[in-house]
Amino acid sequence: MEHLEGRQSVLAALAARLRRFEVILVNHGAPDAKVREVLDAAGALGVPVKRVDGRELDALAHGATHGGVLAICSPKPRTTHEQLIELLDKCAHPPLLLLIEGIEDARNLGFTLRSAEALGAAAVLIKKHLWDFDPTELARPASGAFERLPLVQLEDIELLHRLRRRGMRLLGCVGGAKRNIFDVDLSAAVILAIGGEKRGLSGPVRGLCDALVTIPTVEGAASLPLSHAAAVVLAEARRQRLTQAIPITQNAKI
Amino acid sequence: MEHLEGRQSVLAALAARLRRFEVILVNHGAPDAKVREVLDAAGALGVPVKRVDGRELDALAHGATHGGVLAICSPKPRTTHEQLIELLDKCAHPPLLLLIEGIEDARNLGFTLRSAEALGAAAVLIKKHLWDFDPTELARPASGAFERLPLVQLEDIELLHRLRRRGMRLLGCVGGAKRNIFDVDLSAAVILAIGGEKRGLSGPVRGLCDALVTIPTVEGAASLPLSHAAAVVLAEARRQRLTQAIPITQNAKI
Repeated sequence: MEHLEGRQSVLAALAARLRRFEVILVNHGAPDAKVREVLDAAGALGVPVKRVDGRELDALAHGATHGGVLAICSPKPRTTHEQLIELLDKCAHPPLLLLIEGIEDARNLGFTLRSAEALGAAAVLIKKHLWDFDPTELARPASGAFERLPLVQLEDIELLHRLRRRGMRLLGCVGGAKRNIFDVDLSAAVILAIGGEKRGLSGPVRGLCDALVTIPTVEGAASLPLSHAAAVVLAEARRQRLTQAIPITQNAKI
Repeated sequence: MEHLEGRQSVLAALAARLRRFEVILVNHGAPDAKVREVLDAAGALGVPVKRVDGRELDALAHGATHGGVLAICSPKPRTTHEQLIELLDKCAHPPLLLLIEGIEDARNLGFTLRSAEALGAAAVLIKKHLWDFDPTELARPASGAFERLPLVQLEDIELLHRLRRRGMRLLGCVGGAKRNIFDVDLSAAVILAIGGEKRGLSGPVRGLCDALVTIPTVEGAASLPLSHAAAVVLAEARRQRLTQAIPITQNAKI
């Protein structure tokens, strides 16, 4: 059992129905209008709600930003490789996946998940050690996306081989690549791989990429932060998917 | 005088030549290869360098991430309205400005400045109260962009009137606007205005906008975090500027 803090996260988790809830603790002093949605959602699912003292909540919570709502529930289950394949089979459009390596803190990961969901990623693949992050610190900046978005653990590159055999292209986003993201087709089934700011993409993932692409940033500027680079590349994929027929020159097409 | 921590920030500040340096403190134990650039840059500008104990640095620094380099220097000067106009006059391309309101912490502001510089914003306009942030906490995620990027204080909307009279279009990025960022011309001289996640754009700025535009995110997903929304819109402006002739339908053109 773990703690899930904050109204948005708890509401999203109740709606996603992926966690088992033991109890939801709600501050005695929280105005009804603020927690009504939580009470209703919990009631509909038969999850017990307990009114507690603000100080009790503060003692249980990681920070001061729980806003009077804290759930005790099972961890969010990871999506298995089989579940991912099933999910991709059901996608109405060519699927868009995000693969991230080397993210350094829970907050950036949370923001990345939120951007990934908002910009149309069907799932996010994450290297094994990333699961060590504190789920509470991750859930808050993700603003519900952590609850809804399928997260797949990547232990080795076997899954990537499998996805490529199914016709997905693996595109590695790295600084200095010759092709830029605006000149490649991101409307097909693609996995966008983005590495950490310090080390970039790992050798095994990079070695498997169908192409390396870059965000054409201003010369002399620092590179984009990882979670912002992810948002920019995902947004370009979304633009191409929404506008469909973008002009792609023959040699830029991958 | 204030503290500036970390090798990247100090190097960027030395190169930008906008601050007056009293002294740069360098950890006795820092390997020469790591601080060589700082020593060289300081030497070239006649800034004194003092080797100090690691504990002394830790005591002066905000966090543990100074990496053995801390400068005592004047604050980075704000860019005045006159200086901004001069800068715009010198722009070789139609200028791109970012206006941000309601950003909630120094870290997000730092990441926003870094993205703004990397994606080609000529300057960033910031509401007055944003200057209250701790410059040390702001400088680190900005990775040098805070030192290089002109930052203009916006006390009222007088400057915006002035910029609009000079032919710049003010585009407000808000959720739910009918036009999306992929369908409007961002290659002309524009100010992209983005508001905080809680309140969005303020009334006075919104009222002055030539058009409201939105990032077409997935239905049901949480909105993009402010600094990520800024990166996405700036990247679209950069795409249009790099690819030049994008197809713009008559009624979408603004």
